Amino acid sequence: MDDTASAAEARRWLADFSTALAAGDIAAVLDGFAADCYWRDFVSFTWNIKTLEGKAAIGDMLEAQLGATAPSGWQVTRAKSTPEGIEAWFSFTTAVGSGTGIFRLEGGLCRTILTTLQSLAGHEEPTGFERPLGVRHGARRDRETWTEQRARETAALGVTEQPYCVIIGGGQGGIMLGARLKMLGVPTIIVEKNPRAGDSWRNRYRSLVLHDPVWYDHLPYLPFPENWPVFTPKDKMGDWLESYVSLMELDYWGATEAQSASFDAETGHWTLELIRDGEAITLNPTQLVFATGAYGPPRTLDLPGADSFTGEMLHSSAYFDGRKYAGKKVAVIGAASSAHDVSVDLWEAGAEVTMVQRSPITVVKSDTLMALAFDTYSEQAVADGIDVDTADMLAMATPFALQPVAAKALYDKIRERDADFYDKLAATGFLLDFGPDDTGLLMKAYRTGSGYYVDVGGSQLIIDGEIKVKSGVEIDRLTPSGIAFADGRTLEADVIIQSTGFHSLHEVIANLVSREVGDRIGTCWGLGSGTRNDPGPWHGELRNMYKPVAHPNLFIHGGNLALSRFFSKFVALQIKARMENIPTPVYGAPSTD
Amino acid sequence: MDDTASAAEARRWLADFSTALAAGDIAAVLDGFAADCYWRDFVSFTWNIKTLEGKAAIGDMLEAQLGATAPSGWQVTRAKSTPEGIEAWFSFTTAVGSGTGIFRLEGGLCRTILTTLQSLAGHEEPTGFERPLGVRHGARRDRETWTEQRARETAALGVTEQPYCVIIGGGQGGIMLGARLKMLGVPTIIVEKNPRAGDSWRNRYRSLVLHDPVWYDHLPYLPFPENWPVFTPKDKMGDWLESYVSLMELDYWGATEAQSASFDAETGHWTLELIRDGEAITLNPTQLVFATGAYGPPRTLDLPGADSFTGEMLHSSAYFDGRKYAGKKVAVIGAASSAHDVSVDLWEAGAEVTMVQRSPITVVKSDTLMALAFDTYSEQAVADGIDVDTADMLAMATPFALQPVAAKALYDKIRERDADFYDKLAATGFLLDFGPDDTGLLMKAYRTGSGYYVDVGGSQLIIDGEIKVKSGVEIDRLTPSGIAFADGRTLEADVIIQSTGFHSLHEVIANLVSREVGDRIGTCWGLGSGTRNDPGPWHGELRNMYKPVAHPNLFIHGGNLALSRFFSKFVALQIKARMENIPTPVYGAPSTD
Repeated sequence: MDDTASAAEARRWLADFSTALAAGDIAAVLDGFAADCYWRDFVSFTWNIKTLEGKAAIGDMLEAQLGATAPSGWQVTRAKSTPEGIEAWFSFTTAVGSGTGIFRLEGGLCRTILTTLQSLAGHEEPTGFERPLGVRHGARRDRETWTEQRARETAALGVTEQPYCVIIGGGQGGIMLGARLKMLGVPTIIVEKNPRAGDSWRNRYRSLVLHDPVWYDHLPYLPFPENWPVFTPKDKMGDWLESYVSLMELDYWGATEAQSASFDAETGHWTLELIRDGEAITLNPTQLVFATGAYGPPRTLDLPGADSFTGEMLHSSAYFDGRKYAGKKVAVIGAASSAHDVSVDLWEAGAEVTMVQRSPITVVKSDTLMALAFDTYSEQAVADGIDVDTADMLAMATPFALQPVAAKALYDKIRERDADFYDKLAATGFLLDFGPDDTGLLMKAYRTGSGYYVDVGGSQLIIDGEIKVKSGVEIDRLTPSGIAFADGRTLEADVIIQSTGFHSLHEVIANLVSREVGDRIGTCWGLGSGTRNDPGPWHGELRNMYKPVAHPNLFIHGGNLALSRFFSKFVALQIKARMENIPTPVYGAPSTD
Repeated sequence: MDDTASAAEARRWLADFSTALAAGDIAAVLDGFAADCYWRDFVSFTWNIKTLEGKAAIGDMLEAQLGATAPSGWQVTRAKSTPEGIEAWFSFTTAVGSGTGIFRLEGGLCRTILTTLQSLAGHEEPTGFERPLGVRHGARRDRETWTEQRARETAALGVTEQPYCVIIGGGQGGIMLGARLKMLGVPTIIVEKNPRAGDSWRNRYRSLVLHDPVWYDHLPYLPFPENWPVFTPKDKMGDWLESYVSLMELDYWGATEAQSASFDAETGHWTLELIRDGEAITLNPTQLVFATGAYGPPRTLDLPGADSFTGEMLHSSAYFDGRKYAGKKVAVIGAASSAHDVSVDLWEAGAEVTMVQRSPITVVKSDTLMALAFDTYSEQAVADGIDVDTADMLAMATPFALQPVAAKALYDKIRERDADFYDKLAATGFLLDFGPDDTGLLMKAYRTGSGYYVDVGGSQLIIDGEIKVKSGVEIDRLTPSGIAFADGRTLEADVIIQSTGFHSLHEVIANLVSREVGDRIGTCWGLGSGTRNDPGPWHGELRNMYKPVAHPNLFIHGGNLALSRFFSKFVALQIKARMENIPTPVYGAPSTD
């Protein structure tokens, strides 16, 4: 079918769909859906990050939400044929704002639809045609310059004026959300324990370079320039974030540590105790966002005999530079991304490295990922007119429930392409997997946030025997000189580095608010796929991320640059709507199970 | 004619043109041109910034340059019909690189053609598909991180390794040229007397806001974000420049003053004496660029009786904040942009201001300029797919010789639109003009760089009598308490601010190199239009700007953000070609007359 015919069919389907919605005829709406259908909604119908799976779930959602949402003005904005049928983009309005989405038809029926709120009426972002003038022309004796206004606002916010929102954590997630909130006019302070924006990257190990490419990593509003490297070195990323905070005029409190937070349900305000530059200060925001990273505090192993070990032991998050370990025997416990990067850095510094692998790892060569997995985030995509916002929407148009199918097909291809590489790597004793259902890296990232490595050189060192691997055997205990394994063998080590991951982010909440609140909210991240380490049950979206949780006025935001970029829009809209007292009827109870 | 037909005709014309060029048949080339024709070339045929006016001049240029240029591969890339005929874009290659251009046909013959070199073969900019990887994958014991490499290069450049190029002046012009040279791999140091990049804006008067809109002001590679204000406040511009220098990794020496420069014709190197952070340092670049602003040192009036004046007298370039003049009588000598901005700032601060106008000024309301003069630099243009590079090429496609016609038509419209405003302003005694030939602000800017004001509020204060105007009378002398005029009247003044403009940039060269060299190069800027203060004779392009001058290995770069952006590309290509020993046969002797 050519694209004109596709557009005509898409318009017909959307006309029927919207007519049925306008009539409140839910049965007629459902008639337009395939049996195995999905409606993914970001904040437009559900005020939630929610996927409805199947006609019954969609019907229930519409029963509850259609009246308040009052959608109208549905328009197909582009359409094309696909191998499966038709893919169409559309726009629509609701009682409170404007939205866009993508639906995909198979055999004339809707298999998937994505609906997203993009702006709140009367609170549109001041960009493009709506950008600020920057000056008040004319003459006035009370003129305040830009500098004076910024200085006044900065001095007042958090001192004489309370922010509506405080974001704890000034890494990429906090910064992007801060930028979105700034654009929506939500008074916000970003609180960060490091002195300078970007330090969360600068403080990491010396050789760190992003594993995702530039096209996937853009921040909102200010894309990386055309000469930006494909893979950003960590300090360059730090500098970018620091400039971004300045240029976007964010209220960023560096060198500030959150001590405790408590919520007063009566007033609807938080009491947030901070130490800023060594001085105690209390803030009373209405909304509190945890953007302390995709993960919680470092997870360390409590190893028997640890007290007897006479060498140095540290968690990988405290590792910075291998050069002081030149000539030393180092055991790296763990075999995922950080373990590899740390091991390579140690090898480059001249250390003798053994990776102690405790569970199988998904490895993919970076070149292969670039060639096969980033087609919509690439220079070619840019040349083809697929900008990052378009690519994001296309990625999100597929609900999590359907992603394993495509992911497995991709990894089948990858395994075939790199079969020789995988054979050699497996021959070293390195325990490989491609996820419990062979769906590879990205699904692992969504489910557990761990257990994978994008190979940028570490695997070859393992294949060449330059980095040794000890796998498939439990650690029995530490000895004064190293590690004793359950099989009776030992590994001499001057240094042990635990690349053993991180606790769930809800531990940060437990530490700051209370154990009870942390536990009530429960684990963050994960899909509930039923696979190992993925906290269940199935929710169809990431647990507790970017949406209401089991505590009022609290949001959790984070993830890689791409997820932080995309979902910051919806977190910001949720917060802005609450600030403006726009009704936000949330459909679907938060995860607590 | 529809655009398909236009494209066909454009292709036919270009085919004939390129066939004649390939055959070296200059007569046949000229047959394709109208009698009143213009060929504007930026560095592709002439290694100069040059307009050839008329068939004879074009023929002479081709006689001299065609062999070395060896152009080929001419392709029409787009075309459209215009009221006058056809406008077509094209690409081509030369013996050393690739170019683009625009020609305009009238009655099937070429009225104007613009040819520009865009890149040197083998030295293309690392952008887009050519962007750097950012990391060397694999493992190596000599790995140097991005941070370490930058630190090493920064420590070496100018100390153990000589830069190929030094740019004197780290304002917008120096920074943009520095970015272009960085992209071309030309080791360059930017020398700036102020400590921080952006200080050249920060140090200006408190209320300064750019008069040109954001769409006209972009820097290369990193456009302003979509939320950037239309008119940038000066400190925000300063912050942008500072971030830009950091993100583009420029070698920027702040707090560094150039003391003297001398050129050794034998070695082809400069000896440049600097004081950097209080310490003397000598650099030996091959190329020296003056980017100290469009203007030279402040021009002050030597007024009789100045010694007797008991108040404060300063040049507008030293003016920062009117608030300390509250309640005082201030005379502002001059009536152009700075004089207006300073007067408004003083009025807002509560001073009693009189503008002493010495010559007529072109005034245009900012709103009117936005509505009528910035059609290709606007949000609508962006929405229509006209990005800043496209807009620049379109603007440059018209040679200076033809610009007055369109400029006069624009100002006829402006004068009609704002007739009431102009009547009221003239009624105050303010001396208005629209340039000697009624061509308005932009032509004045090109010809003399002075004598105009974009009205953002000052004119209404004059109309309302809040700012007084004394005009049409010469200053006779200063008295202890103010100014005595030739008509016998006096003006009491506690403070006199000379908004009297700047010397030509060649005075900076005279100060730094020698009077002889400064005078040999002669006046910079201006077209030689024969109108007042425009240094003649006619050269068809800005005098001495962006091109070879009457001294080897010396370039002059500057102008507003737009000109600095556009011409920095061609200055950079000229310098890069010389560094790579690519032949650069310059057509046309430099201006010295």
